[in-house]
Amino acid sequence: MHKSRLGGLIIDCQGDDLPGAAAFWSRALGLDPMPVTDPADKNYVTLETPPNEVDIEVQRVAHESRVHIDIETDDIDAEVARLIDLGAQEVARIRGWVVMQAPTGQRFCVVKVQRANFAEEANIWP
Amino acid sequence: MHKSRLGGLIIDCQGDDLPGAAAFWSRALGLDPMPVTDPADKNYVTLETPPNEVDIEVQRVAHESRVHIDIETDDIDAEVARLIDLGAQEVARIRGWVVMQAPTGQRFCVVKVQRANFAEEANIWP
Repeated sequence: MHKSRLGGLIIDCQGDDLPGAAAFWSRALGLDPMPVTDPADKNYVTLETPPNEVDIEVQRVAHESRVHIDIETDDIDAEVARLIDLGAQEVARIRGWVVMQAPTGQRFCVVKVQRANFAEEANIWP
Repeated sequence: MHKSRLGGLIIDCQGDDLPGAAAFWSRALGLDPMPVTDPADKNYVTLETPPNEVDIEVQRVAHESRVHIDIETDDIDAEVARLIDLGAQEVARIRGWVVMQAPTGQRFCVVKVQRANFAEEANIWP
Protein backbone atom coordinates (compact mmCIF):
# COMPACT_ATOMS: atom_id res chain seq x y z
CA MET A 1 0.00 0.00 0.00
CA HIS A 2 1.26 3.49 -0.81
CA LYS A 3 -0.10 7.01 -1.28
CA SER A 4 0.15 9.78 -3.86
CA ARG A 5 -1.52 12.95 -5.08
CA LEU A 6 -0.91 16.07 -7.14
CA GLY A 7 2.07 17.67 -5.48
CA GLY A 8 3.04 20.67 -7.51
CA LEU A 9 3.04 22.79 -10.56
CA ILE A 10 6.52 23.52 -11.84
CA ILE A 11 7.02 26.46 -14.20
CA ASP A 12 10.05 25.47 -16.31
CA CYS A 13 11.78 28.52 -17.76
CA GLN A 14 14.50 28.21 -20.38
CA GLY A 15 17.57 30.39 -19.94
CA ASP A 16 19.78 31.78 -17.21
CA ASP A 17 17.60 34.54 -15.78
CA LEU A 18 15.93 32.65 -12.94
CA PRO A 19 15.45 35.81 -10.83
CA GLY A 20 13.69 37.53 -13.74
CA ALA A 21 11.52 34.47 -14.45
CA ALA A 22 10.58 34.14 -10.78
CA ALA A 23 9.81 37.87 -10.57
CA PHE A 24 7.38 37.67 -13.50
CA TRP A 25 5.52 34.63 -12.18
CA SER A 26 5.51 35.94 -8.61
CA ARG A 27 3.86 39.18 -9.75
CA ALA A 28 1.58 37.50 -12.28
CA LEU A 29 0.20 35.06 -9.69
CA GLY A 30 0.45 37.39 -6.69
CA LEU A 31 2.53 34.86 -4.74
CA ASP A 32 5.70 35.88 -2.88
CA PRO A 33 8.99 34.14 -3.72
CA MET A 34 10.40 32.23 -0.77
CA PRO A 35 14.07 32.65 0.18
CA VAL A 36 16.40 29.94 -1.13
CA THR A 37 17.77 28.14 1.91
CA ASP A 38 19.57 25.18 0.34
CA PRO A 39 22.34 25.95 -2.18
CA ALA A 40 21.46 22.65 -3.93
CA ASP A 41 18.20 24.32 -4.90
CA LYS A 42 19.83 27.05 -6.97
CA ASN A 43 17.72 26.14 -10.01
CA TYR A 44 14.42 26.70 -8.18
CA VAL A 45 12.43 29.53 -6.65
CA THR A 46 9.38 28.36 -4.67
CA LEU A 47 6.37 30.68 -4.60
CA GLU A 48 4.52 30.84 -1.30
CA THR A 49 1.03 29.34 -1.65
CA PRO A 50 -1.91 29.21 0.75
CA PRO A 51 -2.14 26.09 2.97
CA ASN A 52 -3.46 23.00 1.17
CA GLU A 53 -2.78 24.44 -2.26
CA VAL A 54 -0.31 22.81 -4.65
CA ASP A 55 3.37 23.60 -4.44
CA ILE A 56 4.43 26.12 -7.14
CA GLU A 57 8.03 26.43 -8.21
CA VAL A 58 9.81 28.35 -10.95
CA GLN A 59 12.65 26.23 -12.34
CA ARG A 60 15.57 27.21 -14.58
CA VAL A 61 15.87 24.61 -17.37
CA ALA A 62 17.89 24.05 -20.54
CA HIS A 63 14.97 22.63 -22.55
CA GLU A 64 12.07 24.66 -23.92
CA SER A 65 9.89 26.56 -21.46
CA ARG A 66 6.79 24.73 -20.28
CA VAL A 67 4.73 23.88 -17.20
CA HIS A 68 4.82 20.42 -15.67
CA ILE A 69 3.00 18.53 -12.95
CA ASP A 70 4.69 16.83 -10.00
CA ILE A 71 2.98 13.85 -8.36
CA GLU A 72 4.09 13.45 -4.73
CA THR A 73 4.29 10.04 -3.10
CA ASP A 74 5.57 8.17 -0.07
CA ASP A 75 6.89 5.35 -2.31
CA ILE A 76 8.44 6.47 -5.59
CA ASP A 77 9.05 2.96 -6.98
CA ALA A 78 5.48 1.81 -6.26
CA GLU A 79 4.02 5.00 -7.71
CA VAL A 80 6.13 4.74 -10.88
CA ALA A 81 4.95 1.12 -11.30
CA ARG A 82 1.31 2.21 -10.79
CA LEU A 83 1.66 4.94 -13.42
CA ILE A 84 3.34 2.57 -15.90
CA ASP A 85 0.32 0.27 -15.47
CA LEU A 86 -1.87 3.24 -16.43
CA GLY A 87 0.13 3.76 -19.64
CA ALA A 88 2.89 6.21 -18.65
CA GLN A 89 6.56 5.67 -19.51
CA GLU A 90 9.64 6.16 -17.36
CA VAL A 91 11.97 8.70 -19.00
CA ALA A 92 14.78 9.29 -16.48
CA ARG A 93 15.80 8.83 -12.86
CA ILE A 94 17.38 11.95 -11.39
CA ARG A 95 18.62 12.60 -7.82
CA GLY A 96 15.64 11.36 -5.85
CA TRP A 97 12.87 11.75 -8.41
CA VAL A 98 11.65 10.17 -11.66
CA VAL A 99 10.73 11.91 -14.92
CA MET A 100 7.81 10.23 -16.71
CA GLN A 101 5.81 10.77 -19.88
CA ALA A 102 2.02 10.50 -19.95
CA PRO A 103 0.27 8.55 -22.74
CA THR A 104 -1.13 11.98 -23.69
CA GLY A 105 2.41 13.27 -24.26
CA GLN A 106 3.20 15.55 -21.31
CA ARG A 107 6.31 15.06 -19.22
CA PHE A 108 5.71 14.98 -15.46
CA CYS A 109 7.68 14.00 -12.35
CA VAL A 110 7.16 11.63 -9.44
CA VAL A 111 8.69 13.20 -6.34
CA LYS A 112 8.91 12.75 -2.57
CA VAL A 113 6.21 14.26 -0.39
CA GLN A 114 6.24 18.09 -0.71
CA ARG A 115 3.00 19.39 0.78
CA ALA A 116 1.42 19.49 4.24
CA ASN A 117 -1.40 17.08 5.16
CA PHE A 118 -0.14 14.40 2.79
CA ALA A 119 -0.76 11.56 5.26
CA GLU A 120 -4.38 12.57 5.83
CA GLU A 121 -5.38 13.65 2.34
CA ALA A 122 -3.41 11.75 -0.29
CA ASN A 123 -4.98 8.92 -2.32
CA ILE A 124 -4.36 5.42 -0.97
CA TRP A 125 -3.41 2.77 -3.55
CA PRO A 126 -3.66 -0.96 -2.68
CA MET B 1 -9.27 48.02 -8.50
CA HIS B 2 -9.60 44.40 -9.56
CA LYS B 3 -8.63 40.97 -8.29
CA SER B 4 -6.92 37.86 -9.67
CA ARG B 5 -5.16 34.67 -8.64
CA LEU B 6 -4.09 31.28 -9.95
CA GLY B 7 -7.33 29.71 -11.13
CA GLY B 8 -6.49 26.41 -12.72
CA LEU B 9 -4.19 23.92 -14.23
CA ILE B 10 -5.33 22.83 -17.69
CA ILE B 11 -3.95 19.58 -19.10
CA ASP B 12 -4.03 20.10 -22.89
CA CYS B 13 -4.13 16.77 -24.73
CA GLN B 14 -3.65 16.55 -28.48
CA GLY B 15 -6.00 14.26 -30.38
CA ASP B 16 -9.59 13.10 -30.34
CA ASP B 17 -9.61 10.69 -27.41
CA LEU B 18 -10.73 13.05 -24.64
CA PRO B 19 -12.31 10.22 -22.57
CA GLY B 20 -9.06 8.26 -22.69
CA ALA B 21 -7.00 11.32 -21.80
CA ALA B 22 -9.31 12.19 -18.91
CA ALA B 23 -9.26 8.58 -17.69
CA PHE B 24 -5.45 8.55 -17.52
CA TRP B 25 -5.18 11.85 -15.65
CA SER B 26 -8.08 11.01 -13.35
CA ARG B 27 -6.40 7.77 -12.30
CA ALA B 28 -2.90 9.25 -12.21
CA LEU B 29 -3.97 12.09 -9.89
CA GLY B 30 -6.66 10.15 -8.01
CA LEU B 31 -9.30 12.78 -8.84
CA ASP B 32 -12.75 11.80 -10.11
CA PRO B 33 -13.96 13.21 -13.46
CA MET B 34 -17.05 15.38 -13.08
CA PRO B 35 -20.03 14.85 -15.36
CA VAL B 36 -20.22 17.22 -18.36
CA THR B 37 -23.36 19.31 -17.87
CA ASP B 38 -23.00 21.92 -20.62
CA PRO B 39 -22.71 20.64 -24.22
CA ALA B 40 -20.59 23.75 -25.00
CA ASP B 41 -17.95 22.18 -22.75
CA LYS B 42 -17.46 19.10 -24.94
CA ASN B 43 -13.72 19.74 -25.17
CA TYR B 44 -13.24 19.64 -21.39
CA VAL B 45 -13.41 17.16 -18.53
CA THR B 46 -13.07 18.77 -15.09
CA LEU B 47 -11.45 16.69 -12.35
CA GLU B 48 -12.96 17.07 -8.90
CA THR B 49 -10.49 18.74 -6.54
CA PRO B 50 -10.60 19.36 -2.78
CA PRO B 51 -12.01 22.75 -1.68
CA ASN B 52 -9.61 25.67 -2.11
CA GLU B 53 -7.38 23.75 -4.49
CA VAL B 54 -6.86 24.89 -8.08
CA ASP B 55 -9.31 23.90 -10.79
CA ILE B 56 -7.98 21.00 -12.89
CA GLU B 57 -9.32 20.31 -16.37
CA VAL B 58 -8.33 17.94 -19.16
CA GLN B 59 -8.80 19.68 -22.52
CA ARG B 60 -8.86 18.24 -26.04
CA VAL B 61 -6.64 20.42 -28.27
CA ALA B 62 -5.30 20.44 -31.83
CA HIS B 63 -1.84 21.78 -30.87
CA GLU B 64 0.86 19.78 -29.12
CA SER B 65 0.08 18.36 -25.69
CA ARG B 66 1.12 20.52 -22.76
CA VAL B 67 -0.01 21.89 -19.40
CA HIS B 68 -1.06 25.52 -19.02
CA ILE B 69 -1.99 27.86 -16.19
CA ASP B 70 -5.26 29.80 -16.00
CA ILE B 71 -5.33 33.06 -14.05
CA GLU B 72 -8.85 33.85 -12.84
CA THR B 73 -10.05 37.44 -12.47
CA ASP B 74 -13.11 39.60 -11.94
CA ASP B 75 -11.94 42.01 -14.68
CA ILE B 76 -10.34 40.40 -17.71
CA ASP B 77 -9.38 43.64 -19.47
CA ALA B 78 -7.73 45.09 -16.36
CA GLU B 79 -5.89 41.84 -15.66
CA VAL B 80 -4.63 41.55 -19.24
CA ALA B 81 -3.35 45.15 -19.02
CA ARG B 82 -1.63 44.38 -15.70
CA LEU B 83 0.08 41.31 -17.17
CA ILE B 84 1.18 43.22 -20.28
CA ASP B 85 2.81 45.76 -17.94
CA LEU B 86 4.70 42.83 -16.37
CA GLY B 87 6.00 41.77 -19.81
CA ALA B 88 3.39 39.29 -21.10
CA GLN B 89 1.89 39.49 -24.60
CA GLU B 90 -1.71 39.07 -25.69
CA VAL B 91 -1.96 36.20 -28.20
CA ALA B 92 -5.70 35.76 -28.86
CA ARG B 93 -9.17 36.64 -27.57
CA ILE B 94 -11.49 33.62 -27.53
CA ARG B 95 -15.12 33.39 -26.31
CA GLY B 96 -14.80 35.04 -22.92
CA TRP B 97 -11.13 34.51 -22.21
CA VAL B 98 -7.72 35.73 -23.38
CA VAL B 99 -4.67 33.65 -24.37
CA MET B 100 -1.37 35.25 -23.35
CA GLN B 101 2.32 34.44 -23.55
CA ALA B 102 4.67 34.95 -20.62
CA PRO B 103 8.06 36.62 -21.15
CA THR B 104 9.46 33.21 -20.15
CA GLY B 105 7.68 31.62 -23.14
CA GLN B 106 4.71 29.69 -21.71
CA ARG B 107 1.20 30.26 -23.00
CA PHE B 108 -1.41 30.86 -20.30
CA CYS B 109 -5.01 32.10 -20.14
CA VAL B 110 -6.86 34.86 -18.32
CA VAL B 111 -10.35 33.60 -17.48
CA LYS B 112 -13.42 34.53 -15.47
CA VAL B 113 -13.62 33.48 -11.82
CA GLN B 114 -13.63 29.67 -11.54
CA ARG B 115 -12.95 28.78 -7.93
CA ALA B 116 -14.74 29.23 -4.60
CA ASN B 117 -13.63 31.92 -2.13
CA PHE B 118 -12.33 34.18 -4.88
CA ALA B 119 -13.73 37.34 -3.30
CA GLU B 120 -12.06 36.65 0.04
CA GLU B 121 -8.76 35.19 -1.09
CA ALA B 122 -7.73 36.61 -4.46
CA ASN B 123 -4.99 39.24 -4.78
CA ILE B 124 -6.22 42.84 -4.94
CA TRP B 125 -4.57 45.07 -7.56
CA PRO B 126 -4.87 48.86 -7.35
